[in-house]
Amino acid sequence: MAEPLRLGIAGLGTVGTGVVKIIQKHADVLSKRAGRPLKIVCVSARDRTKNRDIDISDYDWEEDAVAMASRDDIDTVVEMIGGSEGLAKELAEKSLQSGKNIVTANKALLAHHGFELAKLAEDNGASIGYEAAVAGGIPIIKAMREGFAGNDMTAVYGILNGTCNYMLTQMRETGGDFNDILKEAQEAGYAEADPTFDIDGIDAGHKLALLSAIAFGTKPDFDSLKIKGIRQITSTDIEYAEEFGYRIKLLGIARNEGGKLMQVLEPCVVPVSNPLGVIEDVYNAVYVACDSLETPLLTGKGAGEGPTASAVMSDIIDQARGLKIPTFGIPANDLKDPEWTDLGQTSSRYYLRLAVLDKPGVIADISAILRDQHISIEGLVQRGRDPGQEVPIVLTTHETKHADMLKACELFKGLDTVVDEPCLMRIEELE
Amino acid sequence: MAEPLRLGIAGLGTVGTGVVKIIQKHADVLSKRAGRPLKIVCVSARDRTKNRDIDISDYDWEEDAVAMASRDDIDTVVEMIGGSEGLAKELAEKSLQSGKNIVTANKALLAHHGFELAKLAEDNGASIGYEAAVAGGIPIIKAMREGFAGNDMTAVYGILNGTCNYMLTQMRETGGDFNDILKEAQEAGYAEADPTFDIDGIDAGHKLALLSAIAFGTKPDFDSLKIKGIRQITSTDIEYAEEFGYRIKLLGIARNEGGKLMQVLEPCVVPVSNPLGVIEDVYNAVYVACDSLETPLLTGKGAGEGPTASAVMSDIIDQARGLKIPTFGIPANDLKDPEWTDLGQTSSRYYLRLAVLDKPGVIADISAILRDQHISIEGLVQRGRDPGQEVPIVLTTHETKHADMLKACELFKGLDTVVDEPCLMRIEELE
Repeated sequence: MAEPLRLGIAGLGTVGTGVVKIIQKHADVLSKRAGRPLKIVCVSARDRTKNRDIDISDYDWEEDAVAMASRDDIDTVVEMIGGSEGLAKELAEKSLQSGKNIVTANKALLAHHGFELAKLAEDNGASIGYEAAVAGGIPIIKAMREGFAGNDMTAVYGILNGTCNYMLTQMRETGGDFNDILKEAQEAGYAEADPTFDIDGIDAGHKLALLSAIAFGTKPDFDSLKIKGIRQITSTDIEYAEEFGYRIKLLGIARNEGGKLMQVLEPCVVPVSNPLGVIEDVYNAVYVACDSLETPLLTGKGAGEGPTASAVMSDIIDQARGLKIPTFGIPANDLKDPEWTDLGQTSSRYYLRLAVLDKPGVIADISAILRDQHISIEGLVQRGRDPGQEVPIVLTTHETKHADMLKACELFKGLDTVVDEPCLMRIEELE
Repeated sequence: MAEPLRLGIAGLGTVGTGVVKIIQKHADVLSKRAGRPLKIVCVSARDRTKNRDIDISDYDWEEDAVAMASRDDIDTVVEMIGGSEGLAKELAEKSLQSGKNIVTANKALLAHHGFELAKLAEDNGASIGYEAAVAGGIPIIKAMREGFAGNDMTAVYGILNGTCNYMLTQMRETGGDFNDILKEAQEAGYAEADPTFDIDGIDAGHKLALLSAIAFGTKPDFDSLKIKGIRQITSTDIEYAEEFGYRIKLLGIARNEGGKLMQVLEPCVVPVSNPLGVIEDVYNAVYVACDSLETPLLTGKGAGEGPTASAVMSDIIDQARGLKIPTFGIPANDLKDPEWTDLGQTSSRYYLRLAVLDKPGVIADISAILRDQHISIEGLVQRGRDPGQEVPIVLTTHETKHADMLKACELFKGLDTVVDEPCLMRIEELE
């Protein structure tokens, strides 16, 4: 049998530990599938003495993970440290510079520095595996870089953050409010103590930036991405959306619109009849519009030890098999700077909730503003019968220009009957 | 840029033509993704003069496709001829013998001769791409051979035949009977003039045999597979299944049960609340139970020019990139002969429809037989009130041994109130 693929594993948190477990447990079949044994040479973590429920005594210990980059007895560095800067970045750069492959789950690192790292990899004959960075339970990087490689990919739609999808599902099922559900999710281990990255959409935004780069052959451009999380969503929104036949999903959308990139990461309302509308709990799903395929949809549990470690393993096995694919599907030097579309000029149907005082004339005022902005109402519900009190008005529109919706929202705020920030969401269906 | 990958395309039907179209249309981006140009060197088909809506004048014409196998200016033979024997088999064998890679959509060929071809490929340093053979619109071969390669795969469930799924959906939506819907499907181009391969489950059986080989590291064993098609399904079954909260799906099931292979291809009833229960129309879906992943499900349109040609392209690009994976995920010599489980000893919940004469005592007779076979009824519906006429009795059971169900069905046939063959289906939920 061929020489082993020699691994250095930097970071022994949940995922790093999961990878070690799989390599130990499935050693025999893994070497058959990979065509060569997978051999862990050294490991590194913050705390050597921590009990991890795995035996690491056979492996060298590196106090400084970056030292792995200069060891000549390692082929692949598995970077499980995390963070877009600092140690993870230094380790990735130095490993690639010395011609080592890297495997990583680090979406932040790649969303911010993906282009530079891709160039570094190619200049040094190395490859970057990052299946685990996006929806670990779904082989979406492989599907897009390889499976759909014969297609012109025109759009990507994804439910990319399990925590948010779990919370939105819980809010719908229990009627609970955002803050209560967040607390429960934290207690259940589905949300971090500091949930910012998840609920403000940053994590999903990183993932969208990577999928979009593969789909369109562009440099990942996280900084230009418009991101909105789910903090603003109320149980009222969930309820009314349901009444209109919709569910609220934190959606990543990247579309090629006449050569320009339309890309947003924000809560949208999606018909229940839509394949993405029925993805619930901690599940992720990604749909890619392709010119030869029809609605390929991949679904799976996105995060946690098992799925993420499984995705890392798939990259390790690919590297053992000698597979080298450009990081974003085409050579780094061919990646273009994305040209962004003017969001104001994009069109969509919309969901709008206004908190208004239940006074005579309020609907007349609102509908006059909509009319003046050329916005056509598709459905409208106002149910409160509590004169003088705050009640929600919820409406859906026909296809409307985004700029017109924003203008209308500005004007609503000038009405003294509108008492809170309007909640505006795109109604999205798969193409 | 590197040397082109040189292709011979044998067979210019819908899919072969589709492949040529994609290579012509996307030449530029394909060469970036593949790392080298894709160059069609020669083509072959039954009729040279047929109008195919593509320009093939730049390619050599081979009267005899098998001649491609001995050309030394070809790296990959794209076998689009079809059939498990004859020309397709000869071309595949001779191509592999001469060290050429093959790409094929030919599930029959691989289901019958997969092991021998896999050995031939490995002995000659060649590879076999067959993404298009199973659910073209879903990169399931890639997902299983590569994406899930870090997992112990314990079961595969698939809706693998678009024609059958379309017909079952139509029957449910229109209430139409099997023969009428078949005729409509033929007129709409969703079913062949001779629909045997599809509706008798042979096509889906071929596909299941391949997925099962990858999942369990066994030689494909189509001949031992128990197959039942959808001819027996009536609109009554569809209606009653719906009433119990189920839909009828032609399901391929392969499970590792304590080292033995439980494998069937037959109509099953699946809860509507199950991810496979909502897969409708010509869509395919495959779920693979993995030890590290949770319910990864891949969905997409299974057949037709676009999806199948797209899958062929993904194999071609893999080969251009130099990817060589053993045909069934591990070296052919490591593939085991599957040891089949005794189906009679497997357990399941069941759906049973009996056509009975509406006479006093009929339910007593039936329930006595069930009791004597230790079968516990979960639900039962008899609605006819037409004394002396034929009415359906539909029931579902709790977990029951298959042999006991078969024995009960034998005994039902001995009752003079039971007027037709019992319709028995497993109730299947994903693990």
